[in-house]
Amino acid sequence: MSASSPQQSSSQRAGLPFFKGHGTQNDFVIVPDPDGVLEIGPETVAALCDRRAGIGGDGLLRVVRAAADPAAADLADRAEWFMDYRNSDGSIAEMCGNGLRVFARFLVEAGLAKPGELAIATRSGVLTAKVAEDAEDGTPGEVTVGMGRARLPGPDGIEVAVGERRWPALNVNMGNPHAVAFVESLDHAGDLFTAPLTSPEGAYPEGVNVEFVVDRGPRHVAMRVHERGSGETRSCGTGACAVAVAAIRRDGADPAVTGEAVSYTVDVLGGRLVITEHPDGRVEMTGPAVIVAEGRLDERWWGSLTRG
Amino acid sequence: MSASSPQQSSSQRAGLPFFKGHGTQNDFVIVPDPDGVLEIGPETVAALCDRRAGIGGDGLLRVVRAAADPAAADLADRAEWFMDYRNSDGSIAEMCGNGLRVFARFLVEAGLAKPGELAIATRSGVLTAKVAEDAEDGTPGEVTVGMGRARLPGPDGIEVAVGERRWPALNVNMGNPHAVAFVESLDHAGDLFTAPLTSPEGAYPEGVNVEFVVDRGPRHVAMRVHERGSGETRSCGTGACAVAVAAIRRDGADPAVTGEAVSYTVDVLGGRLVITEHPDGRVEMTGPAVIVAEGRLDERWWGSLTRG
Repeated sequence: MSASSPQQSSSQRAGLPFFKGHGTQNDFVIVPDPDGVLEIGPETVAALCDRRAGIGGDGLLRVVRAAADPAAADLADRAEWFMDYRNSDGSIAEMCGNGLRVFARFLVEAGLAKPGELAIATRSGVLTAKVAEDAEDGTPGEVTVGMGRARLPGPDGIEVAVGERRWPALNVNMGNPHAVAFVESLDHAGDLFTAPLTSPEGAYPEGVNVEFVVDRGPRHVAMRVHERGSGETRSCGTGACAVAVAAIRRDGADPAVTGEAVSYTVDVLGGRLVITEHPDGRVEMTGPAVIVAEGRLDERWWGSLTRG
Repeated sequence: MSASSPQQSSSQRAGLPFFKGHGTQNDFVIVPDPDGVLEIGPETVAALCDRRAGIGGDGLLRVVRAAADPAAADLADRAEWFMDYRNSDGSIAEMCGNGLRVFARFLVEAGLAKPGELAIATRSGVLTAKVAEDAEDGTPGEVTVGMGRARLPGPDGIEVAVGERRWPALNVNMGNPHAVAFVESLDHAGDLFTAPLTSPEGAYPEGVNVEFVVDRGPRHVAMRVHERGSGETRSCGTGACAVAVAAIRRDGADPAVTGEAVSYTVDVLGGRLVITEHPDGRVEMTGPAVIVAEGRLDERWWGSLTRG
């Protein structure tokens, strides 16, 4: 064994292949399993997503052919690949917009799909991702994913409060609930360790994601978000959509009224997203997706996980 | 390009090799650079250690031959390898006990050194790590590293306070300052978001690491720690040593008095350490060190970093 080739020596006993990637700093451990042969239970997901004892990620994306997974086999005639998305605690999640961008980017980087429009099976059905061609300077093309339609169920009079400050907020539902407040400064949101207060009491019996928004320019805003159950995060796909929908209405640009699609740039802590709303109500999110590294788990560590 | 081999396709443009490992959940990005050809500036370290946009770690360990690095060339006659340790913000650090364990484990796993006693060059001089043989069931052998000598500079009367509770504390210096308090329950330390108060005022003009300790059994304690500047951490090597030194004195087992080395088991959130104090004052720390994965950075991402 040559002392100058440390990689080679440990490759000889390397285990499960994985990739790591992120979309606006919402990050994922990606595990290719094209033929659906891996059994990755909740404890294993949690171990892989552990940021200090494992690889680290907000979630895990298992990449499996739809036809090879019972959860997606009925979608196999419409989508070749199934995004088996798990939360970092090992629980199963329906969908994740940032995850779908990263999943689509992975398929293209790995040569499993070509840039363009991809149909991807998820637990929310078959969704579409558009992967743009790379720029001439080699910058990876951005990825656009469908985020469904916004609902604005009201009521009027919702408010968000941090410390002594209060703001009116708009209730936007993107499949999950959001309270969007336009503020004078993102600093006014405070440290966001704890959930901002919303009123009237009972408006959000199951909790709410709260977005604080400032203007950056024409059709360009910046936001911070407190995700229910998680605290402040670097990026929240549905939150960025809710913010754009709220800003579009504030600005009198509702596509259902004007008949024209409209796009807003939304800066999140983890990067920049563009949200487009169409006259038929469809909301799309466009943003970067980056594959940072590929690797293999150490076989002994992987073995210790799968043994127990 | 075969659609069923996603690894292979992106390996073709894979970039810098790296490993990830941890010691009691103090985790590191390990970059082999045997011939000292890499230029890894502070921004690159910070990008690699970023937990969402990069690989993620509490720090980076560059593995370079002592003879190939100007910072360690004068130590090359006594140690083959230099641990070039950087903090996650890119700043240079003198030493890290958990990092030294992981560094030694890496050398053995990579075939660069054999189990047993290794001399390793660091910015604190040449230090010794002992890597135990693997257990018969394949469990990696634990690693013992020298942690220097403890000083107990006093004064008496130091107290630590959280909320309404106050405890007497012992001032133990392991090259950095510690206030060690024996408490009834580790829950009494609270959330440790903010630094516990110490008194008298001015006792620690440069801040202090605060340890809360409970007994688990004979010569066996458990601790939580607030590291100055970092908040609560999963493991603090010098803190575990300070805790053992304080418990040894509380129990009347000072090796300088008894003439016999004594070992205490110290449970930290990230695992279990054994701290040994010798009659001549030397303190050693023994604990696990795990290589979790090896990988290569995506060449495009790595290129975007190094282009600036």
